[in-house]
Amino acid sequence: MSENPSVLVLGAGAIGAFYGAILNRAGCEVSVVLRSEYEAVNENGFEISSELGDLSFRPAAVYRSAAECPTPPDYLVVGLKVVDGIDRVSAMRPAVGPDTTIVLIENGIDIEPEIAEAFPDNRLISALAYVAVSRVAPGRVVHKAYGQLVFGNFPRGVDGVTEAFGELLRSGGVKTKVTDTVVRERWRKCVWNGAFNPASVVAGGADTRTMLDVADGEAFMAALMNEIIAVAAADGHEFPAEMVQTSLEQTRKMPAYRNSMALDYLHGRPLELEAMLGNVIRLARRLNVDVPHLETVYTLARMLLAEKPPLDE
Amino acid sequence: MSENPSVLVLGAGAIGAFYGAILNRAGCEVSVVLRSEYEAVNENGFEISSELGDLSFRPAAVYRSAAECPTPPDYLVVGLKVVDGIDRVSAMRPAVGPDTTIVLIENGIDIEPEIAEAFPDNRLISALAYVAVSRVAPGRVVHKAYGQLVFGNFPRGVDGVTEAFGELLRSGGVKTKVTDTVVRERWRKCVWNGAFNPASVVAGGADTRTMLDVADGEAFMAALMNEIIAVAAADGHEFPAEMVQTSLEQTRKMPAYRNSMALDYLHGRPLELEAMLGNVIRLARRLNVDVPHLETVYTLARMLLAEKPPLDE
Repeated sequence: MSENPSVLVLGAGAIGAFYGAILNRAGCEVSVVLRSEYEAVNENGFEISSELGDLSFRPAAVYRSAAECPTPPDYLVVGLKVVDGIDRVSAMRPAVGPDTTIVLIENGIDIEPEIAEAFPDNRLISALAYVAVSRVAPGRVVHKAYGQLVFGNFPRGVDGVTEAFGELLRSGGVKTKVTDTVVRERWRKCVWNGAFNPASVVAGGADTRTMLDVADGEAFMAALMNEIIAVAAADGHEFPAEMVQTSLEQTRKMPAYRNSMALDYLHGRPLELEAMLGNVIRLARRLNVDVPHLETVYTLARMLLAEKPPLDE
Repeated sequence: MSENPSVLVLGAGAIGAFYGAILNRAGCEVSVVLRSEYEAVNENGFEISSELGDLSFRPAAVYRSAAECPTPPDYLVVGLKVVDGIDRVSAMRPAVGPDTTIVLIENGIDIEPEIAEAFPDNRLISALAYVAVSRVAPGRVVHKAYGQLVFGNFPRGVDGVTEAFGELLRSGGVKTKVTDTVVRERWRKCVWNGAFNPASVVAGGADTRTMLDVADGEAFMAALMNEIIAVAAADGHEFPAEMVQTSLEQTRKMPAYRNSMALDYLHGRPLELEAMLGNVIRLARRLNVDVPHLETVYTLARMLLAEKPPLDE
């Protein structure tokens, strides 16, 4: 790998654009694959405001698909949504060379195996973004808070390239947590996300305050989180029981907040329901863990998202 | 009681109007209390089309409140919705004389005790309508199918007045089932309604077909129904386990159907959530029955119905 590693960001939504900008600041040669925002970014680059300073940058190249990329990058950073209708493997394949390290910055549980099976000879870094970042217009992104990236090799361990990737991110200005048990970190994030995100959708795009304020709302959210913790434990990742109470207290202290899935729902965008909750349920079934509250949320969400006959009375 | 018993219908929505018409055909002197449709009905009476013939009738009197009724009726037929914001006891009180029989034609579980406690010296008939009837315009009602009224004295038994009430309904043209265990009949109806109605709301006003067609939809609806059956059993009313499968098969055979609560939700009308499901949950807690699926539906429904901050991003 050269002094200035090449990076291709695939799925440059707000999160892809943000970490692309960080890697650009770290001296990488950052190109991007974009569909709907191709014109805007090809013309003007990304405009990214941040408390870290002006992160705006012009990518080394802007492509409409990975197939246009002439040489495989050192790092293929994937920020695609994990939703039905997006074939991540096909989207990635043209840009994966023998020495390409794949970095998945995506939400959900059990989202790596499909990629690991498709590219068995490539290093796979699984990453979780703790960042508040929004796309406000084509090519325009606002970074509001946080930025830490938590990652490690999938399914476990940390090697030199992964350490080097962490070095790049830190020199670009964000915190990192490099972990040799990244699946555990996925479960940790899932305890909140898997409970709050899908439930907020079924609750009509509800914010955190609304959800905790209905009678028994807090006990209900705790029941969802405890079921996720039980599945995580059966999957080999124990978390302390008090984690739920601590997490709920932190949520209480924050201002009312609509999570990304609630916003996706209210804006009619595809939801990462399977990555965030469906995969938890499937693991629960495989591991014989009873998850009635989660199953109810999951089934109601699919009923909600199903097409229905028009209302005629 | 005279040869031509006097009836006051309170809350003359579609169901109140329909049974008022039946009792009118049976020779009763039927008056009604109406709010929003007072003008239309006072002017033109009810126009009710039905496969039983033209049930249109002009009430003996039309009142804006029960307080306007000069003498208490023999039967006070209550078709008020059981929702927050309607004080049934206050609405009824002016029309309840010492010899008035109260007839509740309302949905839900455990909706009688409040009335029984407020009027401890009056006969209380609890009734369940199995009827497909719609209000299509002020004072205009279409009776589509069925019509059977299932009823008995609350909390149990059947006395002569209740039998006589059944005689009136039958002579008016509808089937009756007079039962000495009416609470059991409420549970029977609740097994379907308590499962399908609230879940259909949280599923976005879903019809039966949509609900049963998502993956595991049928198993999920069965789980809800089985939890209701478990609460009913703890409350002293056993039902055979195969009831759930039979009921789901019948639902499968019907055309896609939006239940009344789904329609109320989609039209922004108040929902009988507490009568239909909240009271089941409260009984389950009192009787130590575990109802995680029902609790999830109930909590999500309250989150859905709660007022939320506007969407600004």
